[in-house]
Amino acid sequence: MENHIVELQYALDTFYFLVMGALVMWMAAGFAMLESGLVRAKNTTEILTKNIALYSIACIMYMICGYHIMYGGGWFLNGISDFDMASIISANAENGFDGSAVYSAASDFFFQVVFVATAMSVVSGAVAERMKLWAFLLFAVVMTAFIYPMEGAWTWGGASVFGMYTLGDLGFSDFAGSGIVHMAGASAALAGVLLLGARKGKYGPNGEVHAIPGSNLPLAALGTLILWLGWFGFNGGSVLKLSDAANAHSVAMVFLNTNAAAACGSVAAMIVARILFGKADLTMLLNGALAGLVVITAEPSTPSPVMASIFGAIGGVVVVFSILTIDKLKIDDPVGAISVHGVCGFLGLMVVPITNGDSSFSGQLIGAATIFVWVFVVSLVVWGIIKAVMGIRVTEEEEYEGMDIIDCGMEAYPEFVKS
Amino acid sequence: MENHIVELQYALDTFYFLVMGALVMWMAAGFAMLESGLVRAKNTTEILTKNIALYSIACIMYMICGYHIMYGGGWFLNGISDFDMASIISANAENGFDGSAVYSAASDFFFQVVFVATAMSVVSGAVAERMKLWAFLLFAVVMTAFIYPMEGAWTWGGASVFGMYTLGDLGFSDFAGSGIVHMAGASAALAGVLLLGARKGKYGPNGEVHAIPGSNLPLAALGTLILWLGWFGFNGGSVLKLSDAANAHSVAMVFLNTNAAAACGSVAAMIVARILFGKADLTMLLNGALAGLVVITAEPSTPSPVMASIFGAIGGVVVVFSILTIDKLKIDDPVGAISVHGVCGFLGLMVVPITNGDSSFSGQLIGAATIFVWVFVVSLVVWGIIKAVMGIRVTEEEEYEGMDIIDCGMEAYPEFVKS
Amino acid sequence: MENHIVELQYALDTFYFLVMGALVMWMAAGFAMLESGLVRAKNTTEILTKNIALYSIACIMYMICGYHIMYGGGWFLNGISDFDMASIISANAENGFDGSAVYSAASDFFFQVVFVATAMSVVSGAVAERMKLWAFLLFAVVMTAFIYPMEGAWTWGGASVFGMYTLGDLGFSDFAGSGIVHMAGASAALAGVLLLGARKGKYGPNGEVHAIPGSNLPLAALGTLILWLGWFGFNGGSVLKLSDAANAHSVAMVFLNTNAAAACGSVAAMIVARILFGKADLTMLLNGALAGLVVITAEPSTPSPVMASIFGAIGGVVVVFSILTIDKLKIDDPVGAISVHGVCGFLGLMVVPITNGDSSFSGQLIGAATIFVWVFVVSLVVWGIIKAVMGIRVTEEEEYEGMDIIDCGMEAYPEFVKS
Repeated sequence: MENHIVELQYALDTFYFLVMGALVMWMAAGFAMLESGLVRAKNTTEILTKNIALYSIACIMYMICGYHIMYGGGWFLNGISDFDMASIISANAENGFDGSAVYSAASDFFFQVVFVATAMSVVSGAVAERMKLWAFLLFAVVMTAFIYPMEGAWTWGGASVFGMYTLGDLGFSDFAGSGIVHMAGASAALAGVLLLGARKGKYGPNGEVHAIPGSNLPLAALGTLILWLGWFGFNGGSVLKLSDAANAHSVAMVFLNTNAAAACGSVAAMIVARILFGKADLTMLLNGALAGLVVITAEPSTPSPVMASIFGAIGGVVVVFSILTIDKLKIDDPVGAISVHGVCGFLGLMVVPITNGDSSFSGQLIGAATIFVWVFVVSLVVWGIIKAVMGIRVTEEEEYEGMDIIDCGMEAYPEFVKS
Repeated sequence: MENHIVELQYALDTFYFLVMGALVMWMAAGFAMLESGLVRAKNTTEILTKNIALYSIACIMYMICGYHIMYGGGWFLNGISDFDMASIISANAENGFDGSAVYSAASDFFFQVVFVATAMSVVSGAVAERMKLWAFLLFAVVMTAFIYPMEGAWTWGGASVFGMYTLGDLGFSDFAGSGIVHMAGASAALAGVLLLGARKGKYGPNGEVHAIPGSNLPLAALGTLILWLGWFGFNGGSVLKLSDAANAHSVAMVFLNTNAAAACGSVAAMIVARILFGKADLTMLLNGALAGLVVITAEPSTPSPVMASIFGAIGGVVVVFSILTIDKLKIDDPVGAISVHGVCGFLGLMVVPITNGDSSFSGQLIGAATIFVWVFVVSLVVWGIIKAVMGIRVTEEEEYEGMDIIDCGMEAYPEFVKS
Repeated sequence: MENHIVELQYALDTFYFLVMGALVMWMAAGFAMLESGLVRAKNTTEILTKNIALYSIACIMYMICGYHIMYGGGWFLNGISDFDMASIISANAENGFDGSAVYSAASDFFFQVVFVATAMSVVSGAVAERMKLWAFLLFAVVMTAFIYPMEGAWTWGGASVFGMYTLGDLGFSDFAGSGIVHMAGASAALAGVLLLGARKGKYGPNGEVHAIPGSNLPLAALGTLILWLGWFGFNGGSVLKLSDAANAHSVAMVFLNTNAAAACGSVAAMIVARILFGKADLTMLLNGALAGLVVITAEPSTPSPVMASIFGAIGGVVVVFSILTIDKLKIDDPVGAISVHGVCGFLGLMVVPITNGDSSFSGQLIGAATIFVWVFVVSLVVWGIIKAVMGIRVTEEEEYEGMDIIDCGMEAYPEFVKS
C-alpha cells in the first residue's frame, strides 16, 4: 500500500514537472512571436531563425554539459534514463513515507532545460535588427553551455561562488529566476548591445530618439499572451513539488499571484503611458504585463494577492520609465528586453524580503551583483572575442537591405508591398 | 495512510483546476486573435489593447470584489493564502475519507477569474471598430466587478434572485456557462451595440448590408483554434473534481462531447454556407465551431457523443441564420459575437433538459430570462451613463482614420501598404 | 483504502490522457498555421478552411466508425459514456491492486481521435494551392473513416493483416506513429500529388525548379512551434499509462527525447542548408525540427538522450536532401510534407531496432511496406474515383486567381496590397 502511494506521488510530481515544462517550452513561441512582431518586416525571418535556433542550441548544450555544470550528475545526461524503483521505495521508507520529493530525473531536466532557453531568448530581442546570425548563435552556445550554468550552479545549484561565499547562506532567494534567468539574460544582452551599437537611424545627430515601429503588432500581442500562459509553468513549476496538500496550495497561490502581477503590470503601464503620451500605447501595455511577470518571479509564493498586485503594478510603472531612460542613454533595445528582464528582474529580487523572511536585502543585493557581474563581464569578453574574430554586426548596406535576405535568403512577407 | 490519500486527492484536484484554468486563460489569446483577424487593419492595435486590458481589468476587479460578491469569502481575497492541513484531514475523516471535494481555494479563484474575462471578451468583438477605448474599459470595470458577479451569485453562487426565487430550485442548470458566461457577455454587448449604432458604411440607405471583410483571416482561424483548445478547460474544469473515478470519467466525457460539438458545428455551418452562398465561407466555419462549443457548454456531461454532435450541429446551423438575421435588423456586430454567444448560449440552455433530468424547460427559460434582463438592463444603464458623461463613440473622422491612431497612437501593420 | 488508490490511478491516468490529447488537438492549429504560412496569400483562406474542416471531419468519422474499425467497441461510440466502478475495482482486485491500466474509455477515444486528424493534416499541405476543396474533403471522409482505421487496426489494434500475418508477431513496433500516422498521411498525400500534378509555374520547361515562397513566415514558425509543443502530447501520451513510477519515468524520458530530437533536427538542417545554399534557410530549419520529431516518434522511450539527438540530427539532414530530391522528381509538395512525414517517418521506423530489442529490421520493413502499400494504393483508387467523378484540380484560370476567391469567396488579407 505505501508503495502504491509513493508511486502515485512520484507519478503526479513527474507529470506536474512535464506539464509545467511544456508550458515553459511554449514561451519559446512567445519570444519568437513578440520579437518578430516588434522588428521591421525586413528582419522578421532572421529573428524567427534566431529564436528557433537558440532554443535548439540551448537544449543541446544544456544536455551536453550545462546541466552537469549546474547540478552535477554527469555529462551528456549520462545515466538519466536509469530507473530504480527499489531505491525510491526504500528512500521513502526511511522517511516514514512522508512524501519526500521523488520524481523522474528526466522530468527535472526537461523542466530545467527550458529555463536556459528563456534566458537566451531575452538576448535575441535586444540585439535584433543588426547582429549577424552566426555570431549570435555562437554566443548562444557559450551562454547556454557555460555562462548561465555557472551562475545557476551558484544559486539554484547551491555551489559556492568561486569558493568564496555561498549565496543561500547570505540570504539570497530567487524563487523562479527573476535574477537567475531574466536579469542574467538581460545582462548578456546589455553587453552585446554596448559592443554592437544602435540601429542606423534610431538616434539622430542631435540626440533625437526616432521610434522604429514594430511591423506586426498582433504577433507581438500573441507573443505576450503566450509568455503570460507559459509563465504559469515557469513560476508554478518552481515550487518543485505538487503531490502533498501544502505544496499543491503553494502552486495554486503561485498561479494566482503570477496572474495578478501580470494584470496589474499591464494596467499600470497603460495608465502611465496614457499620462505621458496621451495614448494607450499597446507596446507599453505588453511590456507592462511582462514586467509584472518578471517582478513576481523572484517570489510568487509568499505575497498575498494584493501584495503581488502591488509588486506587478510597480513593475508596470518602472518598465515605462526604464524604457524611456535607456533610450535616452542611446542604448538601443528594439523590444525593451533590458528594461523588462533586467531592470524588473533586479526589482523583483529586491522586493523578495518584503514577504519572504528567509531572504535579506543584503543577500539579494549580493546575489544580484554576483549574477550581473559574472554574466555581464564574461559576456562582454565573449562578444568581444566574437567581434574580433568574425564581427558581430552586419554592414550598413546589409542593415539597410534587411537581415532576412542577408542571413536567411528569404523574406518573411514576400508578397506584401512594404512602404 | 488515509492522510496521504487525502493529500493526493487535494493535490490532484488542485492541479486539475490550475491546468484547466490555464487553458481558459489561453482563451484570452483566442478572443484577441479572433477579433484582430476580423476587424480592419486600421482598428487592430486598438482591439488588441482592449482585449489585453479587459483581461487584466477582469482579473483585478474580480479579485477586489467580484469573487466575494459571487461566492463570498472576503474582499481582496482576504485569507485565501491561508492553509490549514488539519481541517482538511478532519473534514475528510468525518466523511469516512470518501474523497469529498477538497482543493486549494486559490486554485478555485484562478479557475473562476478566467471565466469573468471570457464573459467580457464577448463584448469587445461586438462593439469593435467604433467604440472609444476608455469608455469600453470603464464598462469592463463595472461588468467584471458587479454585473457578472451578481448573476453569477444567483446561479453558480446559489443565492436567491433579489430574495424572490432561487434558480436552482426552479430547475435551472448551466454546467459551464452557456448562459451565465456567454449569453451574459452577449447581453451586455447587445446593450452596447444598440446605443452605439452601426459602423459607417455597414448599411446602405436602402437597407443594403455591406460586408466589411476581416483583415487577417489566419489570425481569426488561429483565434478559433485557441478557443477550441481553451474550451476543454472551460467545460472540463467545470466538473469541479477529478480525483475519483466517476468524476474523472465525467471530465473525459466532457472533453469528448465538447470536441464533437465543435466539430459538428463547424461542418454544419460550412454546409449551410455552401448552400446559401455557394462558397465555403471560412468565417461561418469558424463561427460554426464556436457555436457548437457555446451550445454544448450548458451541459457537456450528460449527452451521448451522438447527442452532443447533434446539439453542436444545430448550433452551427442556427448561427449562420442568426448572423444573417441580426444583420438584417441592422444590429452591427463585426465578429458575430451576439449570434455565437447570445443566441447559441440561449439555445444551449434550452437543450439541457433533453439529457439532464435535473433541469426543466421552465427553469431554463426563467434562468435565461433572469440573466438576460439583469445583464441587458444594467448594461444599458451603465453604457447610457458612460455615453452621457464621456461619450462611447469616436467621431466620424476618427472612425474613418481608424481606432489605432486615435486611441493607441500606433498602427498594427505600419509597413504594409493598405488598399 | 485499495479502492481509493485504484480511483486515484484511474483519475490520474484519465487526466494524463486528456491533457496529452489536448496537446495533440493543438497540433491542428500547428498544421493550419504552418501551411497557411507556406502557401501564397491568395490560397490562404482555403488552406485554413481545409485544415479546420479536415479536423472536424476526422473527429466525426472516427466517432461514427473509425474507432470501431480500429479497436472495436461499437459504432457511434455506443456505450462509451457508461461507467461501472464495481468492475474497475474488481478487475484490480483480481490483479492484487497492481495498478493495471485503468482509465476512462472516453479519454482513450479523445486521445486517439486527435491522431486521425494529424494523419489527415499531413495531406492538406502536400496538395495545397491547386486541389479543389470539396474533393479534398471527400477524401478526408474516406481516409479518416476507413483507410487510416484499417491500418491502425493492423498495428495498434493488433488485428492480422487480411488474416495473413500479424505485424506485432513479426517484430514491428511503432511507439507513437512515425509510420502509422505520419508515413500513412504522407502516403495518401503522395497518391494525391501524383494524380494532381504540380502547381503552374513550379517547374520550367527545361526542368528548372522555381521556388514559390511562402507568404507569411511568422505563421510558419508559429505553426512549427505549436507542433513541437503538441508533439509532447503525441509521444508522451503514447506511453498510455502514467500512474506508476516506471511509466511516469518513461513519459519523462519521452518528453526529453522528443525535445532533443527536434532540437538536433533543426540545427542539423540549418547547418546543411548553410553548406548547400550559403544561408540559414528558415523553412529548412522548421522542416528539420519536424523531421527530428517524426523520426523519434517511432521509439522515443528506449533511446538515451544522446541517441535520440543523433536520430533527430539524421532526420534533419535527410529531410533537406529529400526535399531537394523530391523537387527534382517534379513531385510538387508545397510544404515538404512528403519528405518530413513520409521519408522521415520511414526512417524513424528503421532506427527503432537500434534501441528497442523487441523490434526487428525485417518487422519494421514489413510493417512499413504494409502501411505504405495499403494507404498508397487505396488512396490512389479513391483519389482516382473522385477525379473521375468531380475532378480534383481547379482550372488554370482559377489557380491563377487563387483558391480563396474560388472556393471560399473571401481573401485572407483583403486590405494588404500584394505584389
